[in-house]
Amino acid sequence: MNNYKYVYFFGDGKADGTAGMKNLLGGKGANLAEMSNIGLPVPPGFTITTEVCTYYYQHERTYPEELKPQVEEAIKNVEEILGKKFADSENTLLFSVRSGARISMPGMMETVLNVGLTSDTIPGLIKQTKNERFVYDSYRRLISMYSDVVMEKAMGIRPKEGQGVRHQLERLLENVKKKNGYKNDTDLTADDLKELTEQMKLKVEEVLGEAFPDNPHDQLWGGISAVFQSWNGKRAKSYRKIEGIPEEWGTAVNVQAMVFGNTGDRSATGVAFTRDPATGENQFYGEWLINAQGEDVVAGIRTPFALNNRAKQDFNKHLPSLEEKMPEVYQKLSDIRDKLERHYKDMQDLEFTIEDGKLWMLQTRVGKRNGIAALRMAVEMQREGLIPKEDAVLRVKPSQLDELLHPMVDPKLESSHTPIGKGLPAGPGGANGKIVFTADSAEELGTKGEKVILVRDETSPEDVHGMKPAQAILTSKGGMTSHAALVARGWGKCCVVGCGDLRIDMENKKATFGDKVLKEGDWITLNGTKGLVYEGELPLVAIDPEQNEHYKQMLNWADQLRRLKVRTNTDTPADTKKALEFGAEGIGLFRIEHMFYGENSEEPLFILRKMIMSNSEKERRAVLDELFPYMKSDIKSTLSVMDGYPVTVRLLDPPLHEFVPKQASGREKLARELRIDTDELKQRFENLHESNPMMGHRGVRLGVTYPEITETQVQAILEAAAELTQEGKTVYPEIMIPVLGHVNELRHQKNIVERVYQRVLEKYNLDKLDHLVGTMIEIPRACLTADQIAEVAEFFSFGTNDLTQMGFGFSRDDIGGFLVHYLEQGILPDDPFQTIDQEGLGLLIKMGVEKGRNTDPKLKIGICGEHGGDPESVKFCHRVRMDYVSCSPFRVPIARLAAAQAAVEEAKMN
Amino acid sequence: MNNYKYVYFFGDGKADGTAGMKNLLGGKGANLAEMSNIGLPVPPGFTITTEVCTYYYQHERTYPEELKPQVEEAIKNVEEILGKKFADSENTLLFSVRSGARISMPGMMETVLNVGLTSDTIPGLIKQTKNERFVYDSYRRLISMYSDVVMEKAMGIRPKEGQGVRHQLERLLENVKKKNGYKNDTDLTADDLKELTEQMKLKVEEVLGEAFPDNPHDQLWGGISAVFQSWNGKRAKSYRKIEGIPEEWGTAVNVQAMVFGNTGDRSATGVAFTRDPATGENQFYGEWLINAQGEDVVAGIRTPFALNNRAKQDFNKHLPSLEEKMPEVYQKLSDIRDKLERHYKDMQDLEFTIEDGKLWMLQTRVGKRNGIAALRMAVEMQREGLIPKEDAVLRVKPSQLDELLHPMVDPKLESSHTPIGKGLPAGPGGANGKIVFTADSAEELGTKGEKVILVRDETSPEDVHGMKPAQAILTSKGGMTSHAALVARGWGKCCVVGCGDLRIDMENKKATFGDKVLKEGDWITLNGTKGLVYEGELPLVAIDPEQNEHYKQMLNWADQLRRLKVRTNTDTPADTKKALEFGAEGIGLFRIEHMFYGENSEEPLFILRKMIMSNSEKERRAVLDELFPYMKSDIKSTLSVMDGYPVTVRLLDPPLHEFVPKQASGREKLARELRIDTDELKQRFENLHESNPMMGHRGVRLGVTYPEITETQVQAILEAAAELTQEGKTVYPEIMIPVLGHVNELRHQKNIVERVYQRVLEKYNLDKLDHLVGTMIEIPRACLTADQIAEVAEFFSFGTNDLTQMGFGFSRDDIGGFLVHYLEQGILPDDPFQTIDQEGLGLLIKMGVEKGRNTDPKLKIGICGEHGGDPESVKFCHRVRMDYVSCSPFRVPIARLAAAQAAVEEAKMN
Repeated sequence: MNNYKYVYFFGDGKADGTAGMKNLLGGKGANLAEMSNIGLPVPPGFTITTEVCTYYYQHERTYPEELKPQVEEAIKNVEEILGKKFADSENTLLFSVRSGARISMPGMMETVLNVGLTSDTIPGLIKQTKNERFVYDSYRRLISMYSDVVMEKAMGIRPKEGQGVRHQLERLLENVKKKNGYKNDTDLTADDLKELTEQMKLKVEEVLGEAFPDNPHDQLWGGISAVFQSWNGKRAKSYRKIEGIPEEWGTAVNVQAMVFGNTGDRSATGVAFTRDPATGENQFYGEWLINAQGEDVVAGIRTPFALNNRAKQDFNKHLPSLEEKMPEVYQKLSDIRDKLERHYKDMQDLEFTIEDGKLWMLQTRVGKRNGIAALRMAVEMQREGLIPKEDAVLRVKPSQLDELLHPMVDPKLESSHTPIGKGLPAGPGGANGKIVFTADSAEELGTKGEKVILVRDETSPEDVHGMKPAQAILTSKGGMTSHAALVARGWGKCCVVGCGDLRIDMENKKATFGDKVLKEGDWITLNGTKGLVYEGELPLVAIDPEQNEHYKQMLNWADQLRRLKVRTNTDTPADTKKALEFGAEGIGLFRIEHMFYGENSEEPLFILRKMIMSNSEKERRAVLDELFPYMKSDIKSTLSVMDGYPVTVRLLDPPLHEFVPKQASGREKLARELRIDTDELKQRFENLHESNPMMGHRGVRLGVTYPEITETQVQAILEAAAELTQEGKTVYPEIMIPVLGHVNELRHQKNIVERVYQRVLEKYNLDKLDHLVGTMIEIPRACLTADQIAEVAEFFSFGTNDLTQMGFGFSRDDIGGFLVHYLEQGILPDDPFQTIDQEGLGLLIKMGVEKGRNTDPKLKIGICGEHGGDPESVKFCHRVRMDYVSCSPFRVPIARLAAAQAAVEEAKMN
Repeated sequence: MNNYKYVYFFGDGKADGTAGMKNLLGGKGANLAEMSNIGLPVPPGFTITTEVCTYYYQHERTYPEELKPQVEEAIKNVEEILGKKFADSENTLLFSVRSGARISMPGMMETVLNVGLTSDTIPGLIKQTKNERFVYDSYRRLISMYSDVVMEKAMGIRPKEGQGVRHQLERLLENVKKKNGYKNDTDLTADDLKELTEQMKLKVEEVLGEAFPDNPHDQLWGGISAVFQSWNGKRAKSYRKIEGIPEEWGTAVNVQAMVFGNTGDRSATGVAFTRDPATGENQFYGEWLINAQGEDVVAGIRTPFALNNRAKQDFNKHLPSLEEKMPEVYQKLSDIRDKLERHYKDMQDLEFTIEDGKLWMLQTRVGKRNGIAALRMAVEMQREGLIPKEDAVLRVKPSQLDELLHPMVDPKLESSHTPIGKGLPAGPGGANGKIVFTADSAEELGTKGEKVILVRDETSPEDVHGMKPAQAILTSKGGMTSHAALVARGWGKCCVVGCGDLRIDMENKKATFGDKVLKEGDWITLNGTKGLVYEGELPLVAIDPEQNEHYKQMLNWADQLRRLKVRTNTDTPADTKKALEFGAEGIGLFRIEHMFYGENSEEPLFILRKMIMSNSEKERRAVLDELFPYMKSDIKSTLSVMDGYPVTVRLLDPPLHEFVPKQASGREKLARELRIDTDELKQRFENLHESNPMMGHRGVRLGVTYPEITETQVQAILEAAAELTQEGKTVYPEIMIPVLGHVNELRHQKNIVERVYQRVLEKYNLDKLDHLVGTMIEIPRACLTADQIAEVAEFFSFGTNDLTQMGFGFSRDDIGGFLVHYLEQGILPDDPFQTIDQEGLGLLIKMGVEKGRNTDPKLKIGICGEHGGDPESVKFCHRVRMDYVSCSPFRVPIARLAAAQAAVEEAKMN
């Protein structure tokens, strides 16, 4: 084992390690090596390998004998580069000590800065920096951090809440502030800090029974040991156990020279982006401060200077840019910018420090950007030849397209407001308007052109007339697939649901958010992308995607690359046209029952209600005959718009009692028409009542118990198709049976379809009429027995809303009571109604697909739950090899992009 | 292929084939061969092998050339044995022709009898039998059967309903009866029949365009072809497709000589059981008739004679027994009886015919018997050395034990009554009583000693006080796991639920069953084993199992043989004592919430309601402190009874609103106590309302959002255990978290348990206290992620009620609308709430067990849903290697027996 290499040097344009040595150097160490290797002026330092960690635990917490000389050698290298010496009383070098495993994980040691400050080195540093306050402040931070993460933790002390050494040291600081009447830490003078550090050292010894080390080498080795010990801390161990990370991986230790941007007017610090993160323009953008530390830029106490003249804004146009003040340094930074983009092939967010005129790169990482900028950067980088279109497509988060598809609350103004409520982001985009509490008021004011937001506990089909004219919908209950959410998303309307902070007092027309009481007519603004509610009218910004050529280019690439088809969930000709504009390739979910909701539904709904109240097959058939023409013309109008594309028509899904009129007036009319008294009507209603309607008499269960209901619907679909065919249209109706749990249910229904099909062929004198008979897969049992169901079904469409309800046992209407709580506490990582729960229900879906294809390898499989428009879920659908996804019109572009990303990601895996 | 054997002869004590040749000879053919081989006088005949069927379809529906000579050879054999000739005009031989595949399946050809009757052979047979009427009646049946199953079906004619040849021939018969004023077919004279057969033959030719064959050989070959053709009939094909039966299996054809018991006074026919099927006594038992056909015995028109003197009863003691009338034949039959029992090692049900003094055995099969008899036969056969105890335990259907565990409606009287209603058999046994419609009336009359049956749409916890004193409960709604069913089963009380025929008019206190209107106070009788309702008071019979030594022996064997442990679902000391008597080995489900139902629940329920209405953690904690002593003493009293056995205590499961008082008086008291007004109370109630409470805020979701509720319950459990330990008892509490969907929920709750555990150890000064923390597996997602859950859980208990609800999407309270319909139409083979749906949910359960054990091979796994007492489900639990089942006390013996059967069946498989 002699001369085995345990320490890897890096710095100032070169490194012993490389980017590929993550297992040996950890993520951070490999990254530092890479930055050095591409020639960036990284503050020098060294990485102690993960093998030392393994050795340490295999040898009773001792180090290999080669370690110490190798560390000393590395320190010497650093000293040479910087012209400083570690532990030198005149011209001292300080280090930071950081952990760095292969992947970052909780429980590992926090970074310790300023290692090397002692009573011996402090005076020299003060002389050098001419900044006594800075030096003692650094010392204070070192004591506080070190005594906690190195000393206390390494001693295995597990103090009670608030009894740890760090807390006790903080109390000393608070005392100083109190005594002097200071408000902020920055109010402390150099003398205050000097005295404080003395008190702190005494306290450390008192609490831990051991003096704070006053020797730089002791500090350094203490830090190194602490990193290794943190690998076996309780939190890190339990995290590894959960994530299945092997003990043997170990952690590396990174020791890096400290550099300071606050040593005078030739020093500075700043952050920059290689392209403008707000617009995406290919322009160097950033901010900097003279004689400052990194945290000063971030803290926003001092007004930051612009990096270059182009980046100057109103508030800092009078302040010098780096380009003006230090032109050579700016030129170096600008060269580094080019180098970074060429190397990382993406916009980078970088941190730099200038110490006495020397530029140091502290960090570089992929920079955050908004959607508009992301689109522009991706498209332009492809055009610049920096990346292929496959990579360009990966550069935009599909959800970022929402910025173009919906108006948004102006982000600049939003950041300065505090939300008064938080709920689930059910319909993306922003909206503002006056509070109204009833659908009728919403309709009345909305159609007059007033901007209103409908605020309710929850909505029902009877509210639809008021939801359409409202700018947005806000509910206190319900989840991502509640009625309000589904309807709003279908229209691309802003919507926040399940806002637990909201209490509505209908009687007094008041809405309370926490302590804040608002009344009808007061303005609020919603951010439906994040689920936030603001008081007052915040302005919106809107962009027309058709005017954005980057958007169009991006979706064009997406269509070239994706394998998944993208359909839409629509029920009306108008929505269907909109979806076609957004690129839909068919309808994945046309719900027959939509004709009983919303506009022009009065007459058919009334007939439906008569049917529901019928007491015999004969009565029912008579009423179904009345309903038939409405049904046929409704289906026909949408089928006609989707000329040339498939249309999946789902037979009646909800339990019948959902259509029962809630108002007395409606009931009286119904009783008159049915020639029964209201008591009898009431009795019939009550017979329909169910304790858990979501798992009750609905979907195919209605079709099996009342075959005539299925018969009428199928006849309407096939006659509509027959007539359109004769009119020269190309239609592909797909008849979908909902709520299926057993193959026999499908057999039963398919027999009815067969019978009606023959009748329709005869009536229209046709030889054949393209159509498929398939089923929703939305009941867990359907997944479990998908092999049997595929013997009868000609297609599967996963109804992941209901599957999630049943799979989790979460009623979508009732999760308000606990789901937000679950997400906040991290019990669930995501709302499963928003993103498919891949580790749980994903297994069931995968099983359903595999069993189905086992029986019929060519089975057409799609998804029509709202997950079909969620990017992560779309990618999952691609991976389990579905044929298409279907979502509301406004999410079609998002799904197209996500589908392309899935295909590219898959190709990259292979 | 020359001389290949296609025809296998059997008869009169020998056969070409054997019992093992099912694939070649079909089930029926192999059975006939076996009967012959063991020396039974089977009417001779032959089997045409399944290979001929395969040949037939591979060679354009032709036969191998060897077939015809082999058939002729076999016919000659038959003729020799019987001394008759096929197609002989003097002394003719007739045949039956039957299909017979490996397994019996629908759609195969029905049996054709009397093949060989023609205008040429009829006169000879009349001369021989001296019974012209019999001969023409046989001829009529031949024409009717043959023209339908052989001629029409073979021609591929698919007539409309009621237009088939058989229906048209039946109309001729009806005409004759009408013309002559006859009521029954038996009223027709020989002349009537002779004329009718002539008309029938004309009609056949008219309808089918082909004459009825008047040649015995044509008839025979027509029958043989028809069998083969039925193999490819539509119904048989679709059945094979569903069941996955290969086309190549083919069917065999059985041609067997007809023998007649009605050829005079030396002829007879009868049925017999090798032991008494009513008592199980080892006595030959049976009935016979002189000069009669088999169907005459079954039809019950003539009074049957006793087989032997011992079997004579009041109604036939004056009639001669076979023992008296034909002593030699009786002796032969008696010898056959011995032979059959020695060979089949079980009680046989046999059919015989005596033709001119010669005994023929037509059929033998395992005989049906009631529970008492089954027990006795099994135990005695073991003692006689006929079977080992492993076989003995297989001989009793576990559900037959119900006959000993509950009073039953007297089966003799029941058979002569027609039920007025049919529902689901929710609580086995019988009961009679007067109808009452409210729990209060039930309580009032019941406690006075009157027998009442509580008749309701459904029951709720507020009815419990009236359910206890009632003899039985009958509901119009709900399924096998509805409130009424669960409560009744827990008490071993007779119960019928979901009786769709029942309509209740509460206002006028009337119950309508179809047309039958009953009023309060009218007597009804329930058969809860079959789900039947009778008008009036039918007497009950009851047996004390402790007095039945066969029962005791059987369960003793069961306990020796089973691997599964059997626990019970109980909540009170009294029920727990009962369960211990029945052999329970612990409690698998003790529901904390039971203390809020039923007797002595007023005070704790009121406190619970206060808790539910609390608005803050502080308020809730205060009320929980009030509740704590009730909880602890309640748990302690049951834990104490189960001394030495484990007790699984399930934390609060139902949604809180279930405990909200429905009556105004209760609400007012609550408002007063909480010092809020009733409006505020109403508002708080409404906030608790859920659309689908079954999938709402319940179980662990309550425990996560209100950790203090979990804390109090855990403290009550552990303190109870600590105190019992100090009192010298041995307790094993198992804390069970319900409604779990994600491992993080369990982590959260387990942390609370840990904390409370430490507190309790300290309080009672104990080092440790045996306990486990585990979870219900009742949400589909829990099965899917059981590997993760097993990292935290120390045991799993499958809650198959909820798992069935979520897995099927069937709300147990709402299936009344369709489940009965589904069962009747065969869409579902069984009620999944009664018997685990093995092909669907079984996969999910299996996955849960396997994934759980993958993580922790020693994980303790059981089931506590009501399926734990269903024999088929118990066997399933054994097969998936659970450790125990748990069920209501009265089902414990049933589960013990089923568990033993599962173990024996498994051993036999290996």
